[in-house]
Amino acid sequence: MLKIAFIGLGNMGIGMAQNLLNANYSLNVYNRTKDKSSTLKGDVKVFDQPDKAVDGQDIVITMLSDDETLNQLANGEHGFLASMKNGAIHISMSTISPDTSRELYNMHKIAGSHYLTAPVFGRPNAAAEAKLFICTSGDVETKEKAKAVLELLGQGIYDFGTEPGAANVVKLAGNFMIMASMETMAEAFTLAEKQGLDREQVAEFFGNTVFNAPIYKNYGTLIAKKQYQPVGFKSKLGFKDARLASKMALDAQMPAPLLSLVYNRLLSAVANGNGENDWVEGIAGSVSTDAGV
Amino acid sequence: MLKIAFIGLGNMGIGMAQNLLNANYSLNVYNRTKDKSSTLKGDVKVFDQPDKAVDGQDIVITMLSDDETLNQLANGEHGFLASMKNGAIHISMSTISPDTSRELYNMHKIAGSHYLTAPVFGRPNAAAEAKLFICTSGDVETKEKAKAVLELLGQGIYDFGTEPGAANVVKLAGNFMIMASMETMAEAFTLAEKQGLDREQVAEFFGNTVFNAPIYKNYGTLIAKKQYQPVGFKSKLGFKDARLASKMALDAQMPAPLLSLVYNRLLSAVANGNGENDWVEGIAGSVSTDAGV
Amino acid sequence: MLKIAFIGLGNMGIGMAQNLLNANYSLNVYNRTKDKSSTLKGDVKVFDQPDKAVDGQDIVITMLSDDETLNQLANGEHGFLASMKNGAIHISMSTISPDTSRELYNMHKIAGSHYLTAPVFGRPNAAAEAKLFICTSGDVETKEKAKAVLELLGQGIYDFGTEPGAANVVKLAGNFMIMASMETMAEAFTLAEKQGLDREQVAEFFGNTVFNAPIYKNYGTLIAKKQYQPVGFKSKLGFKDARLASKMALDAQMPAPLLSLVYNRLLSAVANGNGENDWVEGIAGSVSTDAGV
Amino acid sequence: MLKIAFIGLGNMGIGMAQNLLNANYSLNVYNRTKDKSSTLKGDVKVFDQPDKAVDGQDIVITMLSDDETLNQLANGEHGFLASMKNGAIHISMSTISPDTSRELYNMHKIAGSHYLTAPVFGRPNAAAEAKLFICTSGDVETKEKAKAVLELLGQGIYDFGTEPGAANVVKLAGNFMIMASMETMAEAFTLAEKQGLDREQVAEFFGNTVFNAPIYKNYGTLIAKKQYQPVGFKSKLGFKDARLASKMALDAQMPAPLLSLVYNRLLSAVANGNGENDWVEGIAGSVSTDAGV
Repeated sequence: MLKIAFIGLGNMGIGMAQNLLNANYSLNVYNRTKDKSSTLKGDVKVFDQPDKAVDGQDIVITMLSDDETLNQLANGEHGFLASMKNGAIHISMSTISPDTSRELYNMHKIAGSHYLTAPVFGRPNAAAEAKLFICTSGDVETKEKAKAVLELLGQGIYDFGTEPGAANVVKLAGNFMIMASMETMAEAFTLAEKQGLDREQVAEFFGNTVFNAPIYKNYGTLIAKKQYQPVGFKSKLGFKDARLASKMALDAQMPAPLLSLVYNRLLSAVANGNGENDWVEGIAGSVSTDAGV
Repeated sequence: MLKIAFIGLGNMGIGMAQNLLNANYSLNVYNRTKDKSSTLKGDVKVFDQPDKAVDGQDIVITMLSDDETLNQLANGEHGFLASMKNGAIHISMSTISPDTSRELYNMHKIAGSHYLTAPVFGRPNAAAEAKLFICTSGDVETKEKAKAVLELLGQGIYDFGTEPGAANVVKLAGNFMIMASMETMAEAFTLAEKQGLDREQVAEFFGNTVFNAPIYKNYGTLIAKKQYQPVGFKSKLGFKDARLASKMALDAQMPAPLLSLVYNRLLSAVANGNGENDWVEGIAGSVSTDAGV
Repeated sequence: MLKIAFIGLGNMGIGMAQNLLNANYSLNVYNRTKDKSSTLKGDVKVFDQPDKAVDGQDIVITMLSDDETLNQLANGEHGFLASMKNGAIHISMSTISPDTSRELYNMHKIAGSHYLTAPVFGRPNAAAEAKLFICTSGDVETKEKAKAVLELLGQGIYDFGTEPGAANVVKLAGNFMIMASMETMAEAFTLAEKQGLDREQVAEFFGNTVFNAPIYKNYGTLIAKKQYQPVGFKSKLGFKDARLASKMALDAQMPAPLLSLVYNRLLSAVANGNGENDWVEGIAGSVSTDAGV
Repeated sequence: MLKIAFIGLGNMGIGMAQNLLNANYSLNVYNRTKDKSSTLKGDVKVFDQPDKAVDGQDIVITMLSDDETLNQLANGEHGFLASMKNGAIHISMSTISPDTSRELYNMHKIAGSHYLTAPVFGRPNAAAEAKLFICTSGDVETKEKAKAVLELLGQGIYDFGTEPGAANVVKLAGNFMIMASMETMAEAFTLAEKQGLDREQVAEFFGNTVFNAPIYKNYGTLIAKKQYQPVGFKSKLGFKDARLASKMALDAQMPAPLLSLVYNRLLSAVANGNGENDWVEGIAGSVSTDAGV
């Protein structure tokens, strides 16, 4: 059985790691905040340095909050990249920029290991229930070897070819689409509200008919109810993704005015000290405030 | 059996009228272009004046392109409003402004007839297959009486209360949401394309996972393929709806920057003489042009 | 000497009327709030109905807050239009839509009087000092006859031809340009502030060099100091002008995203109950709020 | 007399260098394209390496197209920074990011020389006529020593304190303001045009009255005439400045929707292969295209 190191036990990682344990894998784990691992049930070894955690393992999975953290844990002090055994695979599942994946892909190649880009769509409960949608890009053989592990984490694997950054492009494009959907619903529901209708009834109608997709149903309910607690995804992380998407658009020479609109909404949330609040509030709350309701 | 007049045999109306005929209703029909009725199969009487078409009928259904046409056919020369029999019901299914419904509601009340707002979501094929989603608002008894007829035209009836304009608000908010979704997908797919990915594969991924709603699947395919033929819905009609939504936002004191964005996209299409082209081209084609692809 | 009726003694009108009195004209005046005329010095007769005020006069000057008020005083109960003597001239100096001028032009023609469009640029102090810039459009002979009177009110008369609405187009375009300048300065100064610079020093630099125009100097100082008192021009009147400009853009099929931006800023001010506050606050205050400073 | 090295003889630099020669300074010059120096009249020595050009000089003036070029000439192969004599002053007049100035300031300090930020406002003809507006920031003594030289290049020196990046902030904020003014005029003049007025007459009116600043007069004429030749400032350089301003806004957490608007206009110009065209065309030409005129 493949030996796995799991790095990053946040809201998403904790559920993913447990799913691997449930399938009887042994895990070496590393998290900057050590006590996160205490809820894991199964054959777990906790390490206090990333390089030690990956030593001798076949697979290293990372699920971290941003490019900087990933780079730090891979290449900083006690970084794991240089400690991976020859031929081992790093499955990189964080939401990061395609450029970071392109650089890490090359670094792994030089170091004799492999890098597989595999970001996911889904909130923490989907991670816990192994219902994530997983996008992949990278070498064909690497994907083959990682397949069985990825299948334990999600309900579908969608491949976007061999260019290492491709799956990150899809992930960031998707997060932009989610932000844009929030802006869309917030404007529509608030307009309806100000015309005298019930926001929740309007949201329910669209979520059950022409917009009956998870994004519209789930975020639609939150937006209609103006329910911004508990925080599912922070505005500052949403802004990070808007920033990465904007950087990607700059590199590709792509004018994207709707991306600019949601970027500015979330930047405003951060600038006002509300970066820890939910991104639904960052976008939909701002629409309401502008409208005076 | 209720006697029905059907006014407006365009792409949408023709399928709806046929569904009533299929249920063995006799129809009086009126269309400005008379030969549109030639394909109808069943007990049809064709009239060359709206007032004659509604004479003695219990139900008058209108499915027209805009507020002006409806007002003209209701209140202009040979207008039908004054010719409706006492207690008859006008089911108004066109995409029009809430204000027009509010005014017509009052006019019918004075004239001794009833006005029911009942706009629909769905493209012509959905109309033909009786798969429309129908939104209603108006008097409770009127809705009760019209229910059996409406059920023959759609897969669901969603009621928004007694304020006559309410269902129009929902319809226009929904059309705004569709335009916003097109902008969203066009920016996301074009960004992915310029980053080296395949638009269609990206569209398919989102349409099968987190955005698996009809709007995203159907428009997503058109946008990904840059397929703007045949014309399903004209940019000039799309602009009309953006204009009505903006008017509604003005009346309700609702700042809506994303609505402004798609309004300007479609206004640009019209200003460039492309009002007859599909609204997908009006929005998504403009995103591509701006991006130089 | 020409006999003049002056209708509308607001912040602007009061100074203009005084300038005519200073030149020894006798004035019949009408204002909805009667005591406004008490500060006027000279040969003034105050009337309590607009039709009586214009009776027998050669020139009728209107300086009112909006289209609705002008239409009401011209054509409502005791309206002055029908009471103007044959050949008399109505000099219409309010900021109104070109369409209203087009309609009034035709009405006067039918009634045997003349309509001259003559909106102005300048704040109340410029009105008091006869330093207004006056834009005109209308019949050549009418302009000739009105010239001597207009010269007493401003520092320059700029003619835009015979189409009655033309001067209103220029006035509304200009007010849009002022709003856009405020947005421009607010974003630039706030960006500089957040980069650690002194807003006022930055404003002073630009106002003395490449942007040394009255608009940039005057509004620049207010924006830099975040000084929104006393109220010079209300946000709700600014929004009215943004609305009229948008209507004009709609009629002319003109996509104008920057107009949409300032329109939404001022609409938000109105929606939040701040319509009575200065439009500098409506625009620049909103930029600061979004930036968290 | 101070010995000066001048690096960068583009459209701007050539006129500035000549002004120093006219004041009897001897110049060491370096330009990547060597023959640019052939038109200079006076005591000029041409060098083919930046390090040789600065050897022994008291003042080094740089006037280059972007951050990358400056960094390359300062710190790349044969870079001049390490060759400057102890206590010499680098007057950095290019339009670059504040961060680059902050870094170079520190590098000079370590190397024993001084860095003075001194970007300018003005087109090539203003540079040739010593009519530039010069913004400065940096050490007080350095500014004192550089003063006499700077006075030969401009009509005014405006100081923004000791923080090295401050003057760059002002310069980039100003270039944003110019872009925003172009968008403002383009929308206003095109709206007037589509309402039947003469663009040039409208431009002339505003340039002579409430907007009588150089920016509005000069760019206003070009925009009104749709005159995009000869190229005064390339769209790709304009976009570079919009990009630097956006980066500065990101760093300062400043949402700036109008900056986003002009950023996207110029990015679209670049994406469509029109980066070499004038930025007036990049912005105002795009407004016209959107409007179908």
